[in-house]
Amino acid sequence: MTIDLLVHNCSVLVRGDDGVYSTLPNHDIHITGGRISAIAPTQPVAQLDARAVVAADGLLATPGLINTHAHTPMVLFRGIAEDVSVNRWFNEFIWPVESNLTAEDVYWGMLLGLVEMIEAGVTTVADHYFFMDEAARAVSEAGARALLGWAVFASQGYAALDATAAWVERWQGGAGGRIRTWMAPHAPYTCDDDFLRATVAHARRLGVGIHIHAAEDPAQTASSLAKRGVTPIQVLEQTGILELPTLIAHGCGILPEDVELLRAYGGHVGVAHCPKTYLKLASGLTPIRPLQGAGVAIGLGSDGAASNNTLNIWESLRLMALTQKFTANDPEVMPLHAALDIAFTGSATAIGMAGALGRLAPGYLADIALIDLSGAHNQPLHSIPAALVYSMQAADVRTVIVDGKVVMQDRTLRTLDKAEIIAQVNRSMARLAQRVPERRIQVYNP
Amino acid sequence: MTIDLLVHNCSVLVRGDDGVYSTLPNHDIHITGGRISAIAPTQPVAQLDARAVVAADGLLATPGLINTHAHTPMVLFRGIAEDVSVNRWFNEFIWPVESNLTAEDVYWGMLLGLVEMIEAGVTTVADHYFFMDEAARAVSEAGARALLGWAVFASQGYAALDATAAWVERWQGGAGGRIRTWMAPHAPYTCDDDFLRATVAHARRLGVGIHIHAAEDPAQTASSLAKRGVTPIQVLEQTGILELPTLIAHGCGILPEDVELLRAYGGHVGVAHCPKTYLKLASGLTPIRPLQGAGVAIGLGSDGAASNNTLNIWESLRLMALTQKFTANDPEVMPLHAALDIAFTGSATAIGMAGALGRLAPGYLADIALIDLSGAHNQPLHSIPAALVYSMQAADVRTVIVDGKVVMQDRTLRTLDKAEIIAQVNRSMARLAQRVPERRIQVYNP
Repeated sequence: MTIDLLVHNCSVLVRGDDGVYSTLPNHDIHITGGRISAIAPTQPVAQLDARAVVAADGLLATPGLINTHAHTPMVLFRGIAEDVSVNRWFNEFIWPVESNLTAEDVYWGMLLGLVEMIEAGVTTVADHYFFMDEAARAVSEAGARALLGWAVFASQGYAALDATAAWVERWQGGAGGRIRTWMAPHAPYTCDDDFLRATVAHARRLGVGIHIHAAEDPAQTASSLAKRGVTPIQVLEQTGILELPTLIAHGCGILPEDVELLRAYGGHVGVAHCPKTYLKLASGLTPIRPLQGAGVAIGLGSDGAASNNTLNIWESLRLMALTQKFTANDPEVMPLHAALDIAFTGSATAIGMAGALGRLAPGYLADIALIDLSGAHNQPLHSIPAALVYSMQAADVRTVIVDGKVVMQDRTLRTLDKAEIIAQVNRSMARLAQRVPERRIQVYNP
Repeated sequence: MTIDLLVHNCSVLVRGDDGVYSTLPNHDIHITGGRISAIAPTQPVAQLDARAVVAADGLLATPGLINTHAHTPMVLFRGIAEDVSVNRWFNEFIWPVESNLTAEDVYWGMLLGLVEMIEAGVTTVADHYFFMDEAARAVSEAGARALLGWAVFASQGYAALDATAAWVERWQGGAGGRIRTWMAPHAPYTCDDDFLRATVAHARRLGVGIHIHAAEDPAQTASSLAKRGVTPIQVLEQTGILELPTLIAHGCGILPEDVELLRAYGGHVGVAHCPKTYLKLASGLTPIRPLQGAGVAIGLGSDGAASNNTLNIWESLRLMALTQKFTANDPEVMPLHAALDIAFTGSATAIGMAGALGRLAPGYLADIALIDLSGAHNQPLHSIPAALVYSMQAADVRTVIVDGKVVMQDRTLRTLDKAEIIAQVNRSMARLAQRVPERRIQVYNP
């Protein structure tokens, strides 16, 4: 069989069926038709029928990382709202400045965020934002993979909801199959139950899932209980959302009874965990281990760069492992392999791509990061899993492949013009930073 | 005045007397005799009498970072003890493998750690380890700055203590003044009171301070109270340590009454805060804000790479800010400028170098990191302090100057042979990883 792309002589991070990761040194990865067709001991290139070769001597191949919850174009607002409460973050900073956004801004912001993610080995993003035609166009041009949703508030009305559904249809399977689209109502506190039910009707009709913020922090759950007598997760159940593939962002306010409720839906519900935002905004933490115990997939996310300040999923992985140990008061909690398995298998499952992403094995989509662990900060390499979780930097990612195509080689982007993107973003900086509270797109009062 | 080294056309991060940081764009830093002699708007090089020039267009100059608590040669054990309790970490992993160490191992391990730190813009390290003649030799060759202490346990006897005191005298002011030496008894739970008093006598005679682990976690404090009726901090007071310049490592078990006790010594006592280790080993956190309220300087440290996995003080800074917000349940706690001021002023004060390190201003020692914030993960640059605390990577550090000498230029080390160091370290890996519990250097039973 002709090999479209041969990744030659790398170490390959593979997952045992017991969830333990190991490495196969000096192996080739054969890619055909955008998928991994074989992983085999290194052979001379001349003996293989390969159309293209990436030399990967000394590099570690891992599955491309998956960012299960981002508002990628918010890189435009990186550093704009620091050291403020969640209320002020929304009402005085983010929702006012988001009123400045144009479709063109989102296009350039999405490109900038995709540059940052590709440079960090993040090959797939589950994005939740506005002006998503432009976001999809950016994903298409970048060569990345994405699960996109067009965020919508009930205050925008049903015509806006219908428009997001039409967009879901328009972009489903776009960019040669690299783009999938879901419905993306903002949250139970900004979308009333009828609006959520209408969203479910659209999603059922279109055969797609729903990506939604819910129970983002304990205060939101308390407020929902006080105002309506139900938790945000109960709202998701009552409005029919949980019957569909559902990606819940954050869930730091998920209660033990919510975990029990979710047990019935575990096979198709995931929760995106974005620990850097939670630390910075003091939101508590997603109850990862109880949710896993109920069969709910946990994925890693960045959230937007206006709270995280980066889109670095390696950092999310590290912070998840560290905070799980710290808050459990037990250093044996969230061991290396469990943490890696959330980053890879958990994240793929959370976005409905189990069996297709998150693992280097024949039949899986060829989304691969090639990492250089030879730097002083990773040496000596007593443990590759420990290096991945606790010492590597995003800058150690050398080469990135998505869908069998090289999008970055030896830190040079193959698909995007980084200098032009950064120049474009800098041109809009001052305009986007203007804050007129009266012009905010929404009021935060969950 | 002749300029020995001209850092040409950078942005300079400067501290206002109110502790607020700002940047001076397009400025030159003049260095003469190892100190900053002027910071002035950029002038043509030809108009200045400069012996050497570092072009720094587009780069941000910050004070070199200070690692206030490390066991640098423990990079040799990076990744060797993962996901284990503190007890097992010491008794089954670290203290057994440390019995394998030779003086030559420490030399190469120190060099490797210095490479990692220089590459991250860390110019000074307060190190606490064994075979410190070799560690000092490595610092001297690297061109770094250090406050070194030769760690000693009471079980080694008074002759060993005397030998560490002789070493303090031998290396004081070494490497052209870049090396300072202090006494370094391991901890109150491994050094009895008489041993600590004998250490104080040496320190007084030599005119030096003491670097010691104390109240590392709440369990140590509880154990000390149960066994002896006093806290570890009270032991430091009763043995006379606190009358001398003292650098306390960790202090996560410092009680409110300890904070009150320390108030009397605040002017010359600092606490090294190493948050990554505390998260990973679930040790609690140093009570930073109460200690600051009592006038005790807080510095940032890495601890050893066997617990931290890196020696990256930018990461310590980020984790400090994030965990302070998270544990206070208040995102307004530890704002950007306060966090930066701990990294720079706090750390310099904690190691007894206030007024000499931690600030870019005339008269200060010329220890400088030149950072490139033009990467996609830092753009757009709405806030330089936010980029330093929350988005930059250590790999963004381009050029590093210590004592007015360039030790890394555009990521190429000027003083050390990285490839040779990594090769040497890899040669000893298997031998150093052998774990024979009976050969451990000490038993952990605080």
